[in-house]
Amino acid sequence: MTGRLFVIGLGPGNPEQLTPEARAAIEGASDFFGYKPYLDRLTLQSHQERHASDNREELARAGAALEMAAAGKTVAVVSGGDPGVFAMAAAVCEAVEKGPSEWRAIELTVVPGITAMLAVAARVGAPLGHDFCALSLSDNLKPWELIEKRLELAARAGFVIALYNPISHARPWQLGRAFEQLGKHLPEGTPVVFGRAAGRPDERIRLTTLGEADPANADMATCVIVGSRETRVVERDGRDPLVYTPRSAGEARQ
Amino acid sequence: MTGRLFVIGLGPGNPEQLTPEARAAIEGASDFFGYKPYLDRLTLQSHQERHASDNREELARAGAALEMAAAGKTVAVVSGGDPGVFAMAAAVCEAVEKGPSEWRAIELTVVPGITAMLAVAARVGAPLGHDFCALSLSDNLKPWELIEKRLELAARAGFVIALYNPISHARPWQLGRAFEQLGKHLPEGTPVVFGRAAGRPDERIRLTTLGEADPANADMATCVIVGSRETRVVERDGRDPLVYTPRSAGEARQ
Repeated sequence: MTGRLFVIGLGPGNPEQLTPEARAAIEGASDFFGYKPYLDRLTLQSHQERHASDNREELARAGAALEMAAAGKTVAVVSGGDPGVFAMAAAVCEAVEKGPSEWRAIELTVVPGITAMLAVAARVGAPLGHDFCALSLSDNLKPWELIEKRLELAARAGFVIALYNPISHARPWQLGRAFEQLGKHLPEGTPVVFGRAAGRPDERIRLTTLGEADPANADMATCVIVGSRETRVVERDGRDPLVYTPRSAGEARQ
Repeated sequence: MTGRLFVIGLGPGNPEQLTPEARAAIEGASDFFGYKPYLDRLTLQSHQERHASDNREELARAGAALEMAAAGKTVAVVSGGDPGVFAMAAAVCEAVEKGPSEWRAIELTVVPGITAMLAVAARVGAPLGHDFCALSLSDNLKPWELIEKRLELAARAGFVIALYNPISHARPWQLGRAFEQLGKHLPEGTPVVFGRAAGRPDERIRLTTLGEADPANADMATCVIVGSRETRVVERDGRDPLVYTPRSAGEARQ
């Protein structure tokens, strides 16, 4: 007997940005796995059970959820944002690959969500309006040299760059180093957006430049968007400026 | 007197993936601008009016919407997916920058949506589970040489690559050329996902490899995801394979 496993994206945290598909999957599940702050967002019924875990134990959490689904339950693994972007969907797939063969028989459904960079971008205009990349600054999972190489190639390619996991207690210097690295390839005036908790009551959006960007403005709940050479700032009297990257680039710019 | 302008992401097309925030913005607007297939998705009330336009007239459409908002109406500009990703939000910002100063006084709200690559990724597992980029293959808006350079740098950086606007009647050869270019830097066996109309009744998801990828499998409604060297395929008896990119890379791979 095999149950089901849903890997669900809760979006950035504003309940109005949670899709009906995600809401229905939450209502139908009996057991919930996830990092505690994400589980805390859920309003569960009395028959629904939470299994909180540390944020660094993703593979073990995925395995525990798969084991329970294999035993016949309808299980939900929840992530903030989109579960496929630096979140639980990859950990669940990895656990399926490495785990017992019966885990491959489980009906697995990934429910997408609004990922942080989209929510942050929407709050300032359209900084991701042209080619862009998303890069995690966590060097728990890859060597720092690889991160620096990717930053360099992304800047040289002209991608707007969304930085996930920019900073934590265990990784205090990486964001500053990333700004330094990007400063070798991009002008000082390149727009930088610090987007913290977009759409939530404790939202804080700051617009600055690469030359002035202070890593202290970021925390674990922040997504940082670094513009390309094409990214523009439009000042507006009495309103926050708009930040956008034009749809056209290079010779095609009018 | 100034009205409001909402730039709204309708998501990939499955109504269950439309956020409550987007639904509320649609209900509150009186006039709707957008590419006709996106307007056709809306169920409007009798007092709500559609202003359809060609998909290539983005700047003119944005200007018409801003003009109506400046006259006091509550106007919606709709995009499929997320409006900030190769869609209308950048065109609206550009129109604000280039337009009359009263357009800067309009209250502008961008409502994010599930963008195509997230919906496609969710249907196959977690191919975007690690660093990735999103690149439009439309050379209406940038020179082809720039696209080739970006493809090369993205492949060398080890990004998973999501290709938007992969093909159209006016751009028949670009996707094949992109696969050739990527083939110089990535192994033939690199997983490639063609994701058409993800979540809609006419959805078609195909998994293949870079060596075998046939551009004829893509159309205007397709998002193509090309894996990195790390992207893996997990076969499952009686189920579609899972495609995922591990959370760790390089020396940190266990």
